[in-house]
Amino acid sequence: MDTRQYMQQVGRDARAASRLMAGASTAAKNDALNRIAGEIRSRRDALLEANARDMELARHEGLDSALLDRLSLNPASVEAMAAGLEQICTLPDPVGEISDVKQRPSGIQVGHMRVPLGVVGIIYEARPNVTADAAGLCLKSGNAAILRGGKEALNANQAIAACVRDGLAGAGLPATAVQVIETTDRAAVGELITMPEFVDVIVPRGGKGLIERISREARVPVIKHLEGNCHVYVDDHADRERVVAIVENAKTQRYGTCNTAESLLIARGVATELLPEIGRMLAGKRVEMRACAESLMLLRDAGIDGGLLVAATEADWSEEYLAPIISVKVVAGLDEAIAHINQYSSGHTEAILTDRHSHAMRFLREVDSASVIVNASTRFADGFEYGLGAEIGISTDKIHARGPVGLEGLTSRKWIVLGHGEIRG
Amino acid sequence: MDTRQYMQQVGRDARAASRLMAGASTAAKNDALNRIAGEIRSRRDALLEANARDMELARHEGLDSALLDRLSLNPASVEAMAAGLEQICTLPDPVGEISDVKQRPSGIQVGHMRVPLGVVGIIYEARPNVTADAAGLCLKSGNAAILRGGKEALNANQAIAACVRDGLAGAGLPATAVQVIETTDRAAVGELITMPEFVDVIVPRGGKGLIERISREARVPVIKHLEGNCHVYVDDHADRERVVAIVENAKTQRYGTCNTAESLLIARGVATELLPEIGRMLAGKRVEMRACAESLMLLRDAGIDGGLLVAATEADWSEEYLAPIISVKVVAGLDEAIAHINQYSSGHTEAILTDRHSHAMRFLREVDSASVIVNASTRFADGFEYGLGAEIGISTDKIHARGPVGLEGLTSRKWIVLGHGEIRG
Repeated sequence: MDTRQYMQQVGRDARAASRLMAGASTAAKNDALNRIAGEIRSRRDALLEANARDMELARHEGLDSALLDRLSLNPASVEAMAAGLEQICTLPDPVGEISDVKQRPSGIQVGHMRVPLGVVGIIYEARPNVTADAAGLCLKSGNAAILRGGKEALNANQAIAACVRDGLAGAGLPATAVQVIETTDRAAVGELITMPEFVDVIVPRGGKGLIERISREARVPVIKHLEGNCHVYVDDHADRERVVAIVENAKTQRYGTCNTAESLLIARGVATELLPEIGRMLAGKRVEMRACAESLMLLRDAGIDGGLLVAATEADWSEEYLAPIISVKVVAGLDEAIAHINQYSSGHTEAILTDRHSHAMRFLREVDSASVIVNASTRFADGFEYGLGAEIGISTDKIHARGPVGLEGLTSRKWIVLGHGEIRG
Repeated sequence: MDTRQYMQQVGRDARAASRLMAGASTAAKNDALNRIAGEIRSRRDALLEANARDMELARHEGLDSALLDRLSLNPASVEAMAAGLEQICTLPDPVGEISDVKQRPSGIQVGHMRVPLGVVGIIYEARPNVTADAAGLCLKSGNAAILRGGKEALNANQAIAACVRDGLAGAGLPATAVQVIETTDRAAVGELITMPEFVDVIVPRGGKGLIERISREARVPVIKHLEGNCHVYVDDHADRERVVAIVENAKTQRYGTCNTAESLLIARGVATELLPEIGRMLAGKRVEMRACAESLMLLRDAGIDGGLLVAATEADWSEEYLAPIISVKVVAGLDEAIAHINQYSSGHTEAILTDRHSHAMRFLREVDSASVIVNASTRFADGFEYGLGAEIGISTDKIHARGPVGLEGLTSRKWIVLGHGEIRG
């Protein structure tokens, strides 16, 4: 069977399974999640052995240490996979919820029912834990899933897939509700993203290049997370006591996460007073500052190590560094801050530090990003901190789902009409 | 200026205007809507004259009478445009609404704020009234709009565009918040659907061919309405008193609308009793029945005019006739009805006629269509009947918006976080 035929069969099976999953009871879905967790625990040694084979091949192919780190499993990370599935059990089932029912003058009652999207295709890198997470979230939200993980994780992914299949079958649900692509042929991705008859939405997770390519070539809707060029704006009316702590947390708690601040904007009225202190904190952590002319002068005057100070170029305002580097700009005030963010941000997460209510409300309203934060760190922008329990990704799109996408983002709402024999006049 | 440069300029202006519209007050938006309505009324004669020029050209080019009918304006339809804008005024402003705020263990409060999508591109046929409707809905929902109407309506559209511009400017809003494309070059559509930097979503309205082409070529999300192959399923437990009236209304009230029933499914247990009566009603209205073998026999036995009875082919189950034709199939019961609908329907609207609660609930849950109706006509599936006040279209997509799309469908929700200086631990 060639890749095209194989993917068509996977698609057909997924579509058929999605019909059964849409009608599955919460009890059956939770039973499956618990069974999968149990299978993962009881087959821990086999999973670790499969992962060891993946690791050996990956080392042989010269993968860098960060990728190897993401690929590797150990007893604790296998347990975390199982526990993650059990946690998804505890989340409320979104499917079938009826809301907003209103009576219309015609006599009919009109409302919404939350329903699964159908078939979700997930394309991700060589991280076996994503296989379990994504399977669990799609299952609980009543979708069928087609998972395509990085080829370096193939053995572990297949071992996890076996646990998922057995858990589904044990609970009386179709084993094809979660399928892990068995071929490493890259053409499989091209097929997956161009089968609108079988796939309702694609969620790509990975580098910007991969996501841009998938968005360009997909013939089905894509829920995507491009990048996180997140801003912290220190307003004239900021609470001086908290500014340094919040900037420190937003920029330096973790350099590689998408909700890390990459750009600091500071109002001219407080820059002289606050920028030196912020600069000293950043310098103490060896964070390079790409600064506008005005902030460069203030930072130099404050005696910051010149080796950490670089004149910003236009490109810096758009950059997601994912590194101990931050761009710094003095702005006239709120208007310039909002305009700058709306011009340069990737639309992920922005924070304002202010004690002026009207500024907070304008920032919330006018900044066009998925998460807009008043007086807290950008690092809060994730599914767990927001109370979603788990997330399939963080969307920087504007339609359907913005920001952290949990169970609700994997569903849609249809209209329901309850009548008593009404006809339209 | 070539078409590409022109469209880039339109896009840039729309993006800039969308920033201002996102922050516009409800009062300013309503003021603009009322002013536009006023301009349309006071320039009625000029609009009718522009439309007369369009009609003359269209007749010269040999447009058929249905298209000419949609193109034509008269004093009553001009007044209806103005009144439609005033009705949009009375709808609640969705923008800025904060909902679902919850306190998290970290101390932050997390919730949603409803926000405009940004820039909406609408591509439609030669119907000048859509220009006013679409402008009004985009304006009220805080979006900027780029409107591309059919070339046959160019003069009327430009005349309406002038009213919109003057109304916006009079209310202190950017005149570029609604732009009507001035060129008839078809390449303008290709540009409009491939400018993700300037356009957030495309809403195509028109024939299936146009919409499929746009979906295939677009590089921005598309909210689309493909077709309405709507079903009525008469269950074993249907209220016999209402069956004929509902089928009559669903099929024959209007033949050309997307929520008209195109297929009748009837449970075997009641087919012998009810199908003859339904068939006589349809035959009385000269509706052709494309029937499965079993229903064909029942209809023949009931003495229905053989000229109206045709053996259904496989293709009939997928057909949107938009004509006095209906496909008819006897099914074993609920399971087969749901499976048939999920296989052949276009996902627009389906109705079940039943008095059995468990059947109604299963149909609501398991039928995968934008609107699912119990004991009422499929003809209710539209924005006005659902209480949206107005609609920009009816979506047969599964993400973002399903079914009638009103003001809410032209918005999204961002996350907002209200903190008190919190940092992530």
